[in-house]
Amino acid sequence: MPRRIILDCDPGHDDAIALLLAAGSPEIDLVAVTTVAGNQTLEKVTRNALAVGTIARIEDVPFAAGAERPLVREQVVAPEYHGESGLDGPELPAPTVALDARHAVDLIVETIMAAAPGEITLVPTGALTNLALAVRREPRIAERVREVVWMGGAAHGGNLSPVAEYNAAIDPEAVRIVLEAGWPVVMVGLDLTHQALADRSVLDAIAAVDGAPAAFTLELLEFFRGTYREQGFEWPPVHDVCAVAYVVDPGCMTVRSAPIAVELHGELTTGQTVVDLRHPAPASCVTSVALGLDAPRMWGHVVDALARLA
Amino acid sequence: MPRRIILDCDPGHDDAIALLLAAGSPEIDLVAVTTVAGNQTLEKVTRNALAVGTIARIEDVPFAAGAERPLVREQVVAPEYHGESGLDGPELPAPTVALDARHAVDLIVETIMAAAPGEITLVPTGALTNLALAVRREPRIAERVREVVWMGGAAHGGNLSPVAEYNAAIDPEAVRIVLEAGWPVVMVGLDLTHQALADRSVLDAIAAVDGAPAAFTLELLEFFRGTYREQGFEWPPVHDVCAVAYVVDPGCMTVRSAPIAVELHGELTTGQTVVDLRHPAPASCVTSVALGLDAPRMWGHVVDALARLA
Amino acid sequence: MPRRIILDCDPGHDDAIALLLAAGSPEIDLVAVTTVAGNQTLEKVTRNALAVGTIARIEDVPFAAGAERPLVREQVVAPEYHGESGLDGPELPAPTVALDARHAVDLIVETIMAAAPGEITLVPTGALTNLALAVRREPRIAERVREVVWMGGAAHGGNLSPVAEYNAAIDPEAVRIVLEAGWPVVMVGLDLTHQALADRSVLDAIAAVDGAPAAFTLELLEFFRGTYREQGFEWPPVHDVCAVAYVVDPGCMTVRSAPIAVELHGELTTGQTVVDLRHPAPASCVTSVALGLDAPRMWGHVVDALARLA
Amino acid sequence: MPRRIILDCDPGHDDAIALLLAAGSPEIDLVAVTTVAGNQTLEKVTRNALAVGTIARIEDVPFAAGAERPLVREQVVAPEYHGESGLDGPELPAPTVALDARHAVDLIVETIMAAAPGEITLVPTGALTNLALAVRREPRIAERVREVVWMGGAAHGGNLSPVAEYNAAIDPEAVRIVLEAGWPVVMVGLDLTHQALADRSVLDAIAAVDGAPAAFTLELLEFFRGTYREQGFEWPPVHDVCAVAYVVDPGCMTVRSAPIAVELHGELTTGQTVVDLRHPAPASCVTSVALGLDAPRMWGHVVDALARLA
Repeated sequence: MPRRIILDCDPGHDDAIALLLAAGSPEIDLVAVTTVAGNQTLEKVTRNALAVGTIARIEDVPFAAGAERPLVREQVVAPEYHGESGLDGPELPAPTVALDARHAVDLIVETIMAAAPGEITLVPTGALTNLALAVRREPRIAERVREVVWMGGAAHGGNLSPVAEYNAAIDPEAVRIVLEAGWPVVMVGLDLTHQALADRSVLDAIAAVDGAPAAFTLELLEFFRGTYREQGFEWPPVHDVCAVAYVVDPGCMTVRSAPIAVELHGELTTGQTVVDLRHPAPASCVTSVALGLDAPRMWGHVVDALARLA
Repeated sequence: MPRRIILDCDPGHDDAIALLLAAGSPEIDLVAVTTVAGNQTLEKVTRNALAVGTIARIEDVPFAAGAERPLVREQVVAPEYHGESGLDGPELPAPTVALDARHAVDLIVETIMAAAPGEITLVPTGALTNLALAVRREPRIAERVREVVWMGGAAHGGNLSPVAEYNAAIDPEAVRIVLEAGWPVVMVGLDLTHQALADRSVLDAIAAVDGAPAAFTLELLEFFRGTYREQGFEWPPVHDVCAVAYVVDPGCMTVRSAPIAVELHGELTTGQTVVDLRHPAPASCVTSVALGLDAPRMWGHVVDALARLA
Repeated sequence: MPRRIILDCDPGHDDAIALLLAAGSPEIDLVAVTTVAGNQTLEKVTRNALAVGTIARIEDVPFAAGAERPLVREQVVAPEYHGESGLDGPELPAPTVALDARHAVDLIVETIMAAAPGEITLVPTGALTNLALAVRREPRIAERVREVVWMGGAAHGGNLSPVAEYNAAIDPEAVRIVLEAGWPVVMVGLDLTHQALADRSVLDAIAAVDGAPAAFTLELLEFFRGTYREQGFEWPPVHDVCAVAYVVDPGCMTVRSAPIAVELHGELTTGQTVVDLRHPAPASCVTSVALGLDAPRMWGHVVDALARLA
Repeated sequence: MPRRIILDCDPGHDDAIALLLAAGSPEIDLVAVTTVAGNQTLEKVTRNALAVGTIARIEDVPFAAGAERPLVREQVVAPEYHGESGLDGPELPAPTVALDARHAVDLIVETIMAAAPGEITLVPTGALTNLALAVRREPRIAERVREVVWMGGAAHGGNLSPVAEYNAAIDPEAVRIVLEAGWPVVMVGLDLTHQALADRSVLDAIAAVDGAPAAFTLELLEFFRGTYREQGFEWPPVHDVCAVAYVVDPGCMTVRSAPIAVELHGELTTGQTVVDLRHPAPASCVTSVALGLDAPRMWGHVVDALARLA
């Protein structure tokens, strides 16, 4: 039976491919797509989400816009990775997907409360603002969600700072709320995603797929390769895809149970996810961190999904 | 024309009297009462609010429960001031006022968006969690609210810590959100409320008023006097009344425009409201702090309101 | 019997007058003058101290230079109050007082260890860097010092920031070390020094004194009045004089025992001295804060000292 | 020509072996041994240092005691690793080495200032308190020291906390002072030392060496193995030896130039050394981090030194 997920995202090149993977995977039943400010402003990432939904010909799935800024801190955006539009590179189609009138936080709460306990999996691939607002607005969702699979954080080393990952660092208070809510959280962070590089073999495999979604993905990856090159990467890590891939096929990753907390008060470390890998986690631990990736197997899922969407 | 207010409170002895003042003042049109965890748990303060509403015979005003805990931090309650029930002392009537089905945050947002711009004044007398969630959920309320009159904070000296006031300290992230939202904020803090002592003359004046609300108030003040005595006060400061009194009659206070911020990261100072009184405030400053009180004039309003409610 | 003091200073207009008060008061036996970076660089304040010593004709008292920067933080100087030289205004004489070869920290340690227990009083009127280094270098001085009378900190309101006083804020780690060393500390902070204004009556009284020291003091105060006017003060507070005045005549001040700590980790409050005035201090408390000043009595001591130095 | 070093240590099992390596290596000219509180109290680690000096028959090298506590924070000791004595396991000989009367900070300053510029290398294997006090007391040492080779910190993962290494975490302000002093600093931290395990082959090799120093080392390692086993290690990492080994033979390690800072204000991360490995270090960078170890080569040096000391 496919896993029912809400994808909460801020497209973003890697979010866009993550959405295509979700839409094209039979293991996933996409029940909603929500957006949050992050890689770009809410307005831009929402428009981008609708455009990607159009390319993927997603139907009967509500798309709703959420938080336009982080919970407590000032807004940050990342044009140096994603361009001014948040999805620079390919030309975007005029969306045929309509935006739902509801606020993302309301849609998330309603969807979870209307579903059976344990039915919905949340897959945030950006800042955790929407999830944090949702669980404060309706605390009962914490025990009804199956798990939260988040692309964000890192056990070792960051990107926005030497030790903090972008999605974690731009709204660290939201991270704390989500990590302490009580639901299971799988952190698919930089430890994992820096193994998910769109290298030559990946590009070639995608180029061999027919159809608009694959072509669009290739254009995204080419742009992304360029911006990541300026950051010293030969091939770009396609972060957000990994969170969806974990839902599609958890077996393609090594995940370890470990206490995870987030620093809110550091001068140099705010937004760092502090993962305690010194000892085995206690039995009560509900957080875990993805550490190892079978990259070819994961990219295989992406290629298959793009082929299905063609 | 009476000022339309939403009273967001956590009764609490002083919240209860503040609610009676609001209900009995012709200068105020009470459009909603919302509750937030603070002096006691959400469940207790909500029950207390309904009981006070019953005593005041408030009709056609929705009462709605809100946040059951602070935004980011762990919950704190104050039985040492308010007892285990949050309103120890008098016997509470069975509420005849029903609880609205809506969440306080939704009620706040809906009320403000349905009213004319500049029509609604928010009067929070507890933690600012509901207001913070509301303005993140619907940012447009920031420019539609007339002003926020908050009982909380202090320019000089605290109570929960040497420098932090209780309502500010239990949810400091919410304070930051509210202080930075852009709406006018009047901080009616300890500088003011420690001048609002329910001394012998106040008790005598209330005792001279007929009716259940005055009798109830007297019982509240007697209990409150006892707990404050253990804190070294001869007479209790009746904090929350002051915020409502400012709306009833701003002229009974001296208020100074000054930049106000809140410390989130201190070891000893978290929750302290930092008020810059070194220089005249810039013209763009939208925050102000109440510093001086004409206490007899303020207590006169309370006595009049209790008489009207009789 | 006169009190034996080491004056640790960073002249600075008010430090200079404090040194003149110390030199001209029979209640004080000045055993050493040490300097520390603060109002200006170590080189400048040391030169200034020697010049003031020359004007006061101080003989047989070692002057030694100490820390050239704060313990942990970057250096700050205050030309906006004291000018580029640290003592702008009067023309400074070529020093006839020689600089001791010893480091201030060594001189402080040696002086205290060579004296009887309880004999030496430390009077720092700048950053506490030298004292902090001394007590870490030789912990036994903590129990041999009679007391530390410090001009710095504040219970209510700051000057470098809304809540932090300059001497405290430029080296807060040193403040923590000194406050926790175990010796008695009297904090003569802004609460007191903002009552010590060199107003018209003070200026007239000093103008009536003969001799170079009084004339020099008048020139200092005229310059200081100008810079403080730009900060919104009609008359300048002559901070450092108050610490020496407390040694000369403790009766001219109201001092209250209270726990004092210092914030090291705040975003807005670092360097704030947190004074707990909520309750009576425990019997074990060794810190106290000066709150009330008999200003005419204090200025009388300054006038008398200047007359003696003439 | 042998490298002239001051070994600043807190023995401690691994400090003790580091001292034996220094004493037995022709590449090193040990000019002083100084002690600092850390693994145990100053009194205990100083006694231990003298005992190890006695076993190594070190002559004509001053041993001096230094700081008895961290600069700003409360003292921490580590009996869970080193026992109550700080050097539990072997029986310690009565020291025949006398303690120098000078304070370690004075000895460090005098030794550096008396030597040629670039002559002295500082090898701290504990908290950096002595070095921090020395460079604040005499700032000119910063440009006269050849380099500081420190066992402490970590780029990835800690031991006292999930992210902070013990020597760094117990006196983080001292770390900041040392990292910012301007002298070259090589950080030999957990990234390296967790590769320096005293495994079966190491134990066997040492057991094959004649003489008291080797026998003593074996006893130390056996005790250390026991305490580390309780921390989940099969074989103990012998941290401090690595710093001395770097001086003996830098070629046995891979060292990378990288900016290093230390967190002083985190709730979860205080004492973490933040190493920026995202990009190549700027040319001005004077800090570097040891990342790779040729462990057999390093242990070979230890075995050789123990043989020489026999």
